[in-house]
Amino acid sequence: MDQLKDGQICSARVRENQGRFKKMRKENDYETDEHAQEHVVPPGLIVVQTEGILTGEITNKEIDESIKPTQVAGNFVGRILRYLMGINGLRLWHSNENFGCSVGPNTFIAMQHVVQALKDKLLQVINSTNNIPKFQIFFNDHVINDFNALFQSLPIDRSYYAFGFPGTFHGRLFPSRSIHFAHSSCAIHWLSKIPKELLDEKSPAWNKGSIHYIGTSNVEVVNAYVAQFEKEMEMLLNARAEEIVEAGMIVLVTPFASYTSLMNCFGSSLMDLVNELDESLADSFNLPMYFPSPEDMTKVVEKNGCFSIERMELTYPKSKLVNEADAKTLMINLRAVLEGLIINHFGSEIAEEDCARTILKS
Amino acid sequence: MDQLKDGQICSARVRENQGRFKKMRKENDYETDEHAQEHVVPPGLIVVQTEGILTGEITNKEIDESIKPTQVAGNFVGRILRYLMGINGLRLWHSNENFGCSVGPNTFIAMQHVVQALKDKLLQVINSTNNIPKFQIFFNDHVINDFNALFQSLPIDRSYYAFGFPGTFHGRLFPSRSIHFAHSSCAIHWLSKIPKELLDEKSPAWNKGSIHYIGTSNVEVVNAYVAQFEKEMEMLLNARAEEIVEAGMIVLVTPFASYTSLMNCFGSSLMDLVNELDESLADSFNLPMYFPSPEDMTKVVEKNGCFSIERMELTYPKSKLVNEADAKTLMINLRAVLEGLIINHFGSEIAEEDCARTILKS
Repeated sequence: MDQLKDGQICSARVRENQGRFKKMRKENDYETDEHAQEHVVPPGLIVVQTEGILTGEITNKEIDESIKPTQVAGNFVGRILRYLMGINGLRLWHSNENFGCSVGPNTFIAMQHVVQALKDKLLQVINSTNNIPKFQIFFNDHVINDFNALFQSLPIDRSYYAFGFPGTFHGRLFPSRSIHFAHSSCAIHWLSKIPKELLDEKSPAWNKGSIHYIGTSNVEVVNAYVAQFEKEMEMLLNARAEEIVEAGMIVLVTPFASYTSLMNCFGSSLMDLVNELDESLADSFNLPMYFPSPEDMTKVVEKNGCFSIERMELTYPKSKLVNEADAKTLMINLRAVLEGLIINHFGSEIAEEDCARTILKS
Repeated sequence: MDQLKDGQICSARVRENQGRFKKMRKENDYETDEHAQEHVVPPGLIVVQTEGILTGEITNKEIDESIKPTQVAGNFVGRILRYLMGINGLRLWHSNENFGCSVGPNTFIAMQHVVQALKDKLLQVINSTNNIPKFQIFFNDHVINDFNALFQSLPIDRSYYAFGFPGTFHGRLFPSRSIHFAHSSCAIHWLSKIPKELLDEKSPAWNKGSIHYIGTSNVEVVNAYVAQFEKEMEMLLNARAEEIVEAGMIVLVTPFASYTSLMNCFGSSLMDLVNELDESLADSFNLPMYFPSPEDMTKVVEKNGCFSIERMELTYPKSKLVNEADAKTLMINLRAVLEGLIINHFGSEIAEEDCARTILKS
């Protein structure tokens, strides 16, 4: 695939039916499935990266719309139509894995957009409401997520059957060939763990004096994060490739951060946060997040080879945050996401004090 | 079907393929499904009634074993084997709808017994572990259930994919033809609401001075409970009949209470409970539970006509509770189940005081 440029839409289905699709991983009995056949028509993949997610500059509505639901629905229905005969229910996986934040209306609104677009498209081609399959949505998050709140806030007038379940999307979540459409929003930048060499004094990637790869001059630290991200994306893509039905589809929405002034701003805010903490406590903490570049995403998807790339796109690429003065806005947004992690490591008093001071100083 | 006697096992499949299966209900767009075809081989049904559930005289293990899991697995696999080709996952619905009590190990142990028996039987006939479909279990309860606790206590070594979802089993929970095996344990005796005529001063079924049908001399009260139970069972059976796949199966485990000294004991304990309460407060409360007799179950299943009856059985029929002196044991068991309901209506202080006094007096 050609190098991505901002806003560029890659040619669709370039690799469909080329027979380049890998054997699925077979790690242990629970995760393998002898029923699983390799796809004849591999599942499609759409990746949308938006810088605005990271900085909080775009709204949830804009994030939801960034995938262009109508276009996604057109792709999906075009792919799967000939396999719909006899299907009574379309099964959708949704992950909004944001460390316990995937409750409340935003989670449902995103999927409501997708479901409505899919129904509209199906209605165009099937031409009878009664013949449109029912929808089942499986809301997935970590086991620490508040599923009670999720279930209690399910829209009364929803037009789908709703289920919840705990589990990490880096492993298997469903039997083979059982999901028609997979959707992950603002989640894949979370790493399941930090690369262990960051804490190893003997490693060239020891990340002393820093809590992330952003803002460090040590390229080994960046490489360790990249390697962890690539490994986890390979696991995610392999698992979904087994779970998604013939000609199904996955859509990934993920933040993108360019290596510009925004990065420095982000890094310096984080440094402020731990400036006056115990040194060893700060050294043992690293943020488990990697913000992939379009090149990173292209590399992992191409290397994996299980999906037919429908579209990879960078939206909202021009950050409005151009200098240090905007650190306050950024910090407010980041705080909402990171506070839990920082409290867990540093305690609530230190986290509270440092967040407040960072915002005041910036 | 012949009248049931204690311990009698009814002849299996007596009505299979007799073409007597009703049109499914079509109440509104969400609940209907034009894809749904009538079953050629209707789903099978097993009902096991055990008196011991009500009195707490049998253990959870005995309740789980009362369905005879190996026999159930034999029935189920025999029915569904020829439909298994191409199925990667068997989907199981489990309801242990006990007003917020369906968390913790008992819920999982019941399904583990069923899953293990099904796997053992499948292995006998398929003869290769790798070819046995994966299992998905959908744990269902009211929205007020603690699903967080349910998910956090899922067995680490489970051999199935687990999901949870809120919803009442009197309505639709899944798309048509999407569940292979349905299992409801100790749940169908809960009514979704009390019959409204019990609170109507002008109705012959006005239940003044009593909070249940047990212990009343007014046959109209009993009839109102029976009618409500029949209506709700019809809804449950219709919904499951649409959801269960060709040749699938449902197993219902339910308490049974005979109209003997046990009933009087139960009734008098409940009367003690409200003896010193405000009269109108007591009059406006009725327990939303009906304990079906084998004749009741036979009637609703026969009238519904959507299922092929594999087995209807009464187990543990001889209660050890024979006189008033056992009311204490009974009350302790009932308290665990009813306390929430009574607190909601009467307040926690009154409920606590009266439960304690009832146990002391009995």
